[in-house]
Amino acid sequence: MLTAKAYAAPSATEPLVPLTIERRDVGPKDVLIAIRYAGICHSDIHTVREEWGPITFPQVVGHEIVGEVTEVGSAVTKHAVGDRVGVGCMVNSCRECEQCRAGNEHYCLSGNTQTYASVDRDGTITQGGYSTHVVVDEDFVLTVPEALPYDAVAPLLCAGITTYSPLARWNAGPGSRVAVVGMGGLGHLGVKIAVAMGAEVTVLSRSESKKEDALAFGAARHVATGDDGALESLRGSFDLIINTVSAPLPMDAYLATLRPEGALVNVGAPPQPLPVSAFSLIIGGRSLAGSNIGSIRETQEMLDFCAEHGIAPETELISADRINDAYERVLNSDVRYRFVIDTATL
Amino acid sequence: MLTAKAYAAPSATEPLVPLTIERRDVGPKDVLIAIRYAGICHSDIHTVREEWGPITFPQVVGHEIVGEVTEVGSAVTKHAVGDRVGVGCMVNSCRECEQCRAGNEHYCLSGNTQTYASVDRDGTITQGGYSTHVVVDEDFVLTVPEALPYDAVAPLLCAGITTYSPLARWNAGPGSRVAVVGMGGLGHLGVKIAVAMGAEVTVLSRSESKKEDALAFGAARHVATGDDGALESLRGSFDLIINTVSAPLPMDAYLATLRPEGALVNVGAPPQPLPVSAFSLIIGGRSLAGSNIGSIRETQEMLDFCAEHGIAPETELISADRINDAYERVLNSDVRYRFVIDTATL
Repeated sequence: MLTAKAYAAPSATEPLVPLTIERRDVGPKDVLIAIRYAGICHSDIHTVREEWGPITFPQVVGHEIVGEVTEVGSAVTKHAVGDRVGVGCMVNSCRECEQCRAGNEHYCLSGNTQTYASVDRDGTITQGGYSTHVVVDEDFVLTVPEALPYDAVAPLLCAGITTYSPLARWNAGPGSRVAVVGMGGLGHLGVKIAVAMGAEVTVLSRSESKKEDALAFGAARHVATGDDGALESLRGSFDLIINTVSAPLPMDAYLATLRPEGALVNVGAPPQPLPVSAFSLIIGGRSLAGSNIGSIRETQEMLDFCAEHGIAPETELISADRINDAYERVLNSDVRYRFVIDTATL
Repeated sequence: MLTAKAYAAPSATEPLVPLTIERRDVGPKDVLIAIRYAGICHSDIHTVREEWGPITFPQVVGHEIVGEVTEVGSAVTKHAVGDRVGVGCMVNSCRECEQCRAGNEHYCLSGNTQTYASVDRDGTITQGGYSTHVVVDEDFVLTVPEALPYDAVAPLLCAGITTYSPLARWNAGPGSRVAVVGMGGLGHLGVKIAVAMGAEVTVLSRSESKKEDALAFGAARHVATGDDGALESLRGSFDLIINTVSAPLPMDAYLATLRPEGALVNVGAPPQPLPVSAFSLIIGGRSLAGSNIGSIRETQEMLDFCAEHGIAPETELISADRINDAYERVLNSDVRYRFVIDTATL
């Protein structure tokens, strides 16, 4: 067994604390990664606070991981010592079902193994990226292009692929009109990626506070949805809406802003059921959809796309002792736009 | 003005009665059609009973119309006297918006003119197909292939295109697994069309009562959704579900029967909002969509497809004096599978 320094949640109600954890020995197909940076995702907070169900403590979270390969197993062919690599939301899957065979590990029919708080194929509970080291099967390790800024790239591994995948699947590109609802960790990357794809991008955000940033990221316009009649004025405007907001929004009002055959894709998940009128879907042949990260192949494609187009997350680099404060600031939407932990401070 | 015999609703609460109505003179682009058969659609009942909003009485309904051309305007090029033709749910649109220019009259941005109870471009209220004659712009008149049985073809003009369009748009075909929910006027055509497209079709129906018919129409299987655990046993089964039921169904339970990236398309519209969990959409990247008839071009394509594949609606031919009884039977789901009025009895 290897040991690693980490920051872990001791329970659902206590702050995270430093902890030394074990990592499995490097197997034939494994890569040992010296983690350099780890992003803080809202999912981390939901998980450690057991808002998405009970977990086993202590738990290390974090699924936006970048670092260097320091050791490889005897059968590893995809990565070499010294490579700059990344790990996102998954670290394993069954490899046998039709979805895995088709390269859709994120749809693994027996459930993929998440990077943290998930039962791995060896029965242990996975521990995430707020840590100095991690051992991951090479098939779930991404190559991080050197062109991407090392200390800012981590959020692409979750927030990046979560927005890239639906933009790609619903053909965002030249001539398409895309709206991004909410401009936080996910939304700001959604804007940058959609702009790079060539779409005309509108940011729909509650207030005017992020308007300047939205335009700086390349959005054609910003609409404050809190203003009277704002949504009504946008009827029939968009081919695609990426909704990154986890609070329940009035779906019918947003569906009405779609053009015929347009799609509203949710990547944020409010816990409450969303009431939707069938007429909102039938008139204009519209879709209400969801999207959940992307495959490993698509995640690599996204990293390469971002490198090619000079897209990087906007981040605030913090030391480990500020993780608990950062959680409070995430909950208050007080971050532009993603916290990244410098794991040298663990 | 021309006159035509018809069956009309005098009010929202009275039975339909015989009435002589006026039709406009045949303009340069118009076609005069001697209607031979008109289907009864559930929409007809919703409309005359003002369940979808107030209308002007007396009102003639019916938007599944077939007959022969008996006169054409001076500028008509698409149809000739003696042609067997059809009219569906639309008789006009603005012709100028980007949707009309793209051949998507059903998405006309200023609203297409419906075949009945709609304000036509000349300010009159359109009167539908329970009538001996109708005058329609040639662009909204379909060619009915002679291979289709004259007395049974009418329901294709609404029920046929309503199910064909989403099956085509979501690529039903060899290798795809399609479920049709509800096997009434729309559903039974959905089954036949999906089978002809090459899909493996499952009928989801409350009881076993239509199982034999479903298999006779080519469905691979029939599942009675009223049975305990029936939906649960279908988790992850379908690429596409066409929901023809107008009663509110539990969307999350049906979404769970979709495979990754599958779509549940509603063509029936319950008046109540449908509660949908965002997680049902996000996990597996699924879509909840709607579809509303199809373009004129696609309606012609559907008619040609049905002629080529020998698809015809299952109908019960009735005389005009049985329309009111037929309405009651439609409401009781007591029809296999569509009533068609013989307009010679008007």
